[in-house]
Amino acid sequence: MSPARFLDLADFSGDEVRELLALADRLQRHPEPQALAGRILGLVFLNPSLRTLASMQAGMARLGGTSFVITPGQGTWALESRLGVRMDGAAAEHIREGLPVLASYCDALGIRAFAEGKDLAADVADSGFRAMAALIDKPLVNLESAINHPCQALADWKTLDDERVPARAKFVLSWVPHPRALPLAVPAAALHMAALRGHEVVVLRPEGFALPPAVMARAEAAARASGGSVRETADRQSALAGAHVVYAKEWGSTAHYGDAAADAALRAGLGDWQVRESTFASAAPGCRLMHCLPVRRNVAVADEVLDGPRSVVLREAHNRLVVQMAVLHRLLKP
Amino acid sequence: MSPARFLDLADFSGDEVRELLALADRLQRHPEPQALAGRILGLVFLNPSLRTLASMQAGMARLGGTSFVITPGQGTWALESRLGVRMDGAAAEHIREGLPVLASYCDALGIRAFAEGKDLAADVADSGFRAMAALIDKPLVNLESAINHPCQALADWKTLDDERVPARAKFVLSWVPHPRALPLAVPAAALHMAALRGHEVVVLRPEGFALPPAVMARAEAAARASGGSVRETADRQSALAGAHVVYAKEWGSTAHYGDAAADAALRAGLGDWQVRESTFASAAPGCRLMHCLPVRRNVAVADEVLDGPRSVVLREAHNRLVVQMAVLHRLLKP
Amino acid sequence: MSPARFLDLADFSGDEVRELLALADRLQRHPEPQALAGRILGLVFLNPSLRTLASMQAGMARLGGTSFVITPGQGTWALESRLGVRMDGAAAEHIREGLPVLASYCDALGIRAFAEGKDLAADVADSGFRAMAALIDKPLVNLESAINHPCQALADWKTLDDERVPARAKFVLSWVPHPRALPLAVPAAALHMAALRGHEVVVLRPEGFALPPAVMARAEAAARASGGSVRETADRQSALAGAHVVYAKEWGSTAHYGDAAADAALRAGLGDWQVRESTFASAAPGCRLMHCLPVRRNVAVADEVLDGPRSVVLREAHNRLVVQMAVLHRLLKP
Repeated sequence: MSPARFLDLADFSGDEVRELLALADRLQRHPEPQALAGRILGLVFLNPSLRTLASMQAGMARLGGTSFVITPGQGTWALESRLGVRMDGAAAEHIREGLPVLASYCDALGIRAFAEGKDLAADVADSGFRAMAALIDKPLVNLESAINHPCQALADWKTLDDERVPARAKFVLSWVPHPRALPLAVPAAALHMAALRGHEVVVLRPEGFALPPAVMARAEAAARASGGSVRETADRQSALAGAHVVYAKEWGSTAHYGDAAADAALRAGLGDWQVRESTFASAAPGCRLMHCLPVRRNVAVADEVLDGPRSVVLREAHNRLVVQMAVLHRLLKP
Repeated sequence: MSPARFLDLADFSGDEVRELLALADRLQRHPEPQALAGRILGLVFLNPSLRTLASMQAGMARLGGTSFVITPGQGTWALESRLGVRMDGAAAEHIREGLPVLASYCDALGIRAFAEGKDLAADVADSGFRAMAALIDKPLVNLESAINHPCQALADWKTLDDERVPARAKFVLSWVPHPRALPLAVPAAALHMAALRGHEVVVLRPEGFALPPAVMARAEAAARASGGSVRETADRQSALAGAHVVYAKEWGSTAHYGDAAADAALRAGLGDWQVRESTFASAAPGCRLMHCLPVRRNVAVADEVLDGPRSVVLREAHNRLVVQMAVLHRLLKP
Repeated sequence: MSPARFLDLADFSGDEVRELLALADRLQRHPEPQALAGRILGLVFLNPSLRTLASMQAGMARLGGTSFVITPGQGTWALESRLGVRMDGAAAEHIREGLPVLASYCDALGIRAFAEGKDLAADVADSGFRAMAALIDKPLVNLESAINHPCQALADWKTLDDERVPARAKFVLSWVPHPRALPLAVPAAALHMAALRGHEVVVLRPEGFALPPAVMARAEAAARASGGSVRETADRQSALAGAHVVYAKEWGSTAHYGDAAADAALRAGLGDWQVRESTFASAAPGCRLMHCLPVRRNVAVADEVLDGPRSVVLREAHNRLVVQMAVLHRLLKP
């Protein structure tokens, strides 16, 4: 683990991830309620949150630390991030001041900053988050950036461990419908996680929703190192046959990135990509349904699946707390 | 006390309430600043709050515990609660995921969820809050639901104790004006509290604002057990004669529940139900004015009363902290 | 220091300020992570905040205490402050109830309440904040009122100490452009701080932006006591010649206070009051640029200055945490 940052699961080898998860297990069995006594975590949410907001605060508290939350636009003014701009608009403060100042008040900072959703190359390069990270000289946690969500990926890996899904299992990352184009952060992070864990990974998505080549290439490199594989297809039948895990996720069209009208036109005919019980007809017995939440019921995934025995979504969410405690312990334990 | 829930004062006998208040007194005299060390309270506010938001956090902190706050619609997306719905609207997450996830991050959860104010039977049955409570396998505190506000009722009981108001005193729950139809939670909770404490309870309200029969019936049962009585009237003169306590409260028309226009028409002529000093002309000497706050000055209650010696509204509010510490201690002390 | 309030740097002599800063230094060198264990700070933000919101919470936590945040209008209803008003509008609660209640839940309260910006005399008298302060019987911290910002002033003094700026240095409080009329709180507080520290203080502002006579008079009295001086001018050349510190700050026209159109007309031609590197052409070598933040880049101050070696704005912001810990320690240490 980089000494002081948790920004991307791809910064870690499979063995390093397993070490971090071993620490998470140890903290569950042997709590350390004073490990981070006196330590302060700043949490900056440029976008809404439920799991991350609650679990980061709860995780710090369970380790004896404290956190504060800053939500630009709600109780705090909007932040400007463009360089060189003449700030005569709505944003009252630039990240070049705001973020270093917040970092100077705490021992570690977490930042959530979703994709802008306009420029695919910029979002895939995570240029916005990287610009923020460059301003901060404290331990830093990525709470979801344009193209990454390492806390989610780590929780998902632990969930696969908890469910005793072997590395050689078939993991299908399946696009599912949503009223709007959502960011690529979770699909990219889940893909990389599954590749690094050694799975036979199939990205199943309609035409127009292919994951960006750079994202695929990174996952392929991880798969080569772990003995897994990665491929992409629009053929639901072949993808789902024999699947051990279906990881449902919504994302926007990459062919029409930033073009809401074209994206909407494309997804209009794709409602039947919703995951239903019938989705699992040819899957392996006991195939699990994963989803990072929040999930739109009966749009992305049907009630019958979310409320049935396949669903491990609540365990994934609970594991956010469990693995983040390990991350915080690693970053902040004196 | 039910092992792990504080949802309704009606779940307790009078003696059980007195035990809880004795614990509150003990914690005031002998603070236990480490009693809840390491314990985490999650607070979910589906509606605004001042007293509850501040006093629950302060109470946890005074007992050594920690809390986090989730406010759907502010920093967190809106939550859907309808079953079976196709979630293609504004709400991004269903309570069936959101609430169990939050519960999994903490040791106890508090939830505030006001009445919808459309279907009287559903609100009186507290069906929305009950559906939420059924999803949560942790200690749970009702921070005000459609038809209940047990923390307020407990604080009000303590206030009557503090003011040495005897059980046999006359307690008048008096409807007062407000620009809009407010929920029935506090009047229902105050009525039950006063009945359980043994008072001669008079619900004084204009025609069209009768409390629901189910609410009255529960209070009558409590009064029978305690030796008190409950009746309802629109006659201010008889109601206020000899009153020892006037508990002022705003609520919406039950005859036109959910019909804002009809409610507004009804309340248009009722401005003189405002509590003024003259309201107490025939009351017992030293008659107190209670109100749960927030109160609209010079609409519901006149300045002269709120700023005079009868008002115990600040004590009621302070007692929220005092009694909630007992509730948290009971629910969470290992 | 008044036993239990931190409302105005003008309540302190220069020696008392130096004592407080010595405590801040001591807490930096010898942290006291349990000094405020069990103590609770309530923070009421009637206006947005970044530094204050984060640093007050972080400061309490670093001293072992806890804080809670109340933001009327966000999760809490709006508060009414006018006396005698009939509350049939948007505000659901009056400060006469809201503030004493919050005070009763905590050991100290901090309040931020910006100027209304309509009535100059009322704002200069800080009548709104004073009315709130009169309702509170607990230690109280001014987190920025209509005409004051003592935490900022104290942090700025410390920054001058850190930068080894001698008392006899020339301190130029320079008006800078902003899209809107901003309050007088920071210029008034910075002016007073610099006068009390003994500087040769020059208030440099365009015609129409003179600081109120009462503010100037108070600063002049402080300057007389400290051996400094205070004067006001619209002549940039003479003001900036030999300056050791330029403290840039935006504020609204006092000649057209509360008249947005007249204010806008006046500031339309003043864009070149922006602080650029050329602003320092005749300044003393090593002249510093101070600003309380948030700063609108390339409107108030150019990138070249903020990103260059003169800027001490991040140190000022960090010192907010440092000095506030001393304030909290003084107010709350048992």
